[in-house]
Amino acid sequence: MSARDVIGFGFAALDTIGLTPHLPELDEGVLLEDLTRQGGGPVAQALVTLARLGVSVGYVGRIGDDEVGTEIRTGLTAEGIDISFLQIEPGARSPQSMILVDQPTGKRSICAFRGTAGDIDVAAGMLDYLCSGRFLHLDGHSPAAALAAAEAASRRGVRICLDAGAGASLDHLLALVQATTVLIAAEHFAMNVASDGAYETGAARLLRMGPEIVVVTRGEQGSYTLTGDTAFATAAFPVSVVDTTGAGDVFHGAYLFGQLQGWDLVRTAEFAGATAALKCTRLGGRAAIPRLPEVLNFLAEHGRQWSG
Amino acid sequence: MSARDVIGFGFAALDTIGLTPHLPELDEGVLLEDLTRQGGGPVAQALVTLARLGVSVGYVGRIGDDEVGTEIRTGLTAEGIDISFLQIEPGARSPQSMILVDQPTGKRSICAFRGTAGDIDVAAGMLDYLCSGRFLHLDGHSPAAALAAAEAASRRGVRICLDAGAGASLDHLLALVQATTVLIAAEHFAMNVASDGAYETGAARLLRMGPEIVVVTRGEQGSYTLTGDTAFATAAFPVSVVDTTGAGDVFHGAYLFGQLQGWDLVRTAEFAGATAALKCTRLGGRAAIPRLPEVLNFLAEHGRQWSG
Repeated sequence: MSARDVIGFGFAALDTIGLTPHLPELDEGVLLEDLTRQGGGPVAQALVTLARLGVSVGYVGRIGDDEVGTEIRTGLTAEGIDISFLQIEPGARSPQSMILVDQPTGKRSICAFRGTAGDIDVAAGMLDYLCSGRFLHLDGHSPAAALAAAEAASRRGVRICLDAGAGASLDHLLALVQATTVLIAAEHFAMNVASDGAYETGAARLLRMGPEIVVVTRGEQGSYTLTGDTAFATAAFPVSVVDTTGAGDVFHGAYLFGQLQGWDLVRTAEFAGATAALKCTRLGGRAAIPRLPEVLNFLAEHGRQWSG
Repeated sequence: MSARDVIGFGFAALDTIGLTPHLPELDEGVLLEDLTRQGGGPVAQALVTLARLGVSVGYVGRIGDDEVGTEIRTGLTAEGIDISFLQIEPGARSPQSMILVDQPTGKRSICAFRGTAGDIDVAAGMLDYLCSGRFLHLDGHSPAAALAAAEAASRRGVRICLDAGAGASLDHLLALVQATTVLIAAEHFAMNVASDGAYETGAARLLRMGPEIVVVTRGEQGSYTLTGDTAFATAAFPVSVVDTTGAGDVFHGAYLFGQLQGWDLVRTAEFAGATAALKCTRLGGRAAIPRLPEVLNFLAEHGRQWSG
C-alpha cells in the first residue's frame, strides 16, 4: 500500500449543472447560457482539491456499476486519486445531481438523485487503509461505517476532519463530532446548533464537544475559526462569481492542505478561502479547482506574500 | 445510397431528466425520485419512433465534436438510423437539456442549452439524400436550409411533414407551412395562429395555407384532424403517465408510419395517439418508445382490432 496523506470517506456523484437566466416554472422552457457535467460530492471534491494542490490522496465510497459510476471513477483517477478501495455495487445506480445556477444571483437549486447503492461497507482490511493517511476526511455519509472508521483512526493517532454541511443534523453527526480533530461546518449548520441562532455560539458549542479546531464557512462573508486559544474571522477574497457549487468542499480540501503544511491557522484559513474563491469563477464544482501555483499567485496579488 | 423511407432534418440533443417531488426554489435542495439521461430533440425522437416501428430512416442535423455529440450519435446509430449526412462541427458544443418532471402533476420545466454549432449547411450533394425518402420530416430548425430542402423535396414529389411545436412562431415557419403536406401542430401553436384563440380556427387557417392534412396534438385531450374533406377528433388512450417529455415527437413519428402504410386518417391518428401514450409510461423521451407489436397489442386491448 503506497502512503497517502489524506484518505477521504464519503460521497461522490456526477453533477449536471446549468446556468439559467431564471428558474423556470412548470410548463415553462428557458434557454440555458451554459451547461456542464462534472464530478461532484463533498468528499470527492475535497480530494480533487488536495490532489491538484499536489497531495497524495485516496477515496473510499460506494457507487454502482453503471455508466455514471464509470464516469465518476474516470474523473477521480484522472486526478491521480487512489480508488483501489472504492466499492462498486453490482446492479446499483450511482448518484447524480441536476443543479440549476441562477445567473443573476449565483444562487442554486440542487436536485439530487442518491442512486441505489447501499452504505459503504467497512471490511476488516479496509480499516488499515482508512488509517493509512495523516488525515481521514469524512462528510457524514454512511454514518455507522464512518464512525467505525473514525474510532479506528482516533486509536491510531490519525487526525479526523469532518465536513458538517448545511443539510446535516447534529443528532446524525454527534458521535462523529466527538471523534473529530478539525470540524469545518457550514454557517447554517453552526446556526442550527446554537441556542441563540448565532454561528459563533454554535461554533463554541461544537468546540466543547471535542474538536481541536472549529471552522465555520460563511460563503461571501468569509470564514470564522475557533479553538481553545483563539477566535478570528477572515474575509472572503473578491472574485467574479459564476457558480458557488462545491466551494465549501474546496475550502475543506485546501484547509487540510494548510494543516499538512503545518501552517498557522490564519494562513490556513486564508489559503482555503482563496482556493474556494478561485473555484467560483467557472461553472461547475470541479472545472475551476486551482493548482498550487495559481492559488499562491492569487494570494500574492491580494497582498499575501508567504515565503515557502 | 440505400433507400430510406423517411429522412428527418432538424434538431437532436441529449437530455438529462429528473423526476422531482416539487420544483425547488433557489437555495433549496430536493431529492429526486429518479434521474435519466437520454437522447432527445423533436426530429430525432420522431425518427427513433419510426425506426422502432420498423421503418428505414436517416437523420440530417448538426452537432459538435464533443463527448455529448458522440453520445447523441451513438444513440441514433444504436436505433439503426443512418447518420452518414449528419454534420459534426469541429470545436462546437452539442445541444443538451435539463428537464425536471414534477411527479404530482407530470408537468415539466425544460432548460435547454442550444450548444454552439451553427445551422445545418445544405450542400449540393445533400439535397439528393434529403429527397431520397417518401417523406421529409422537419421541425423548423435551421430555417433557411430547411426551406431549401423542402422546396427541393416538393419539386421531386417527396411529401413533407412539419412539426410545429408549442414554442414555434408562424412568422418563422410561414414558408415551410406552404410547402408542407402533413402539418402536425401543438395545440398552443394552433391557438396562437387563430383569430379567436381556438385551435380548430387555427387548424383551418393553417389548412388554407397549403397542407393537405393538419393535425393538432392536444396532449391528454387527444388529437384533432382537419383536411379539405373531413374534421374529427380522437381521444387519448388512458395510461399511467410518468413523463410526457417527447410525446408529441413520438406522435409525429407514428403518424408518418400510418401515412407510409396508407392507413386511413382515423386509424393513423389513433395509432399515433397509442404510440405516444405508451411513451409516457416511463421517465425520459426515448426509454419507452414502443415497438410495433407493443403498439398493436395495446390497440387491441383497447378494442382496436385491425387486420393488417
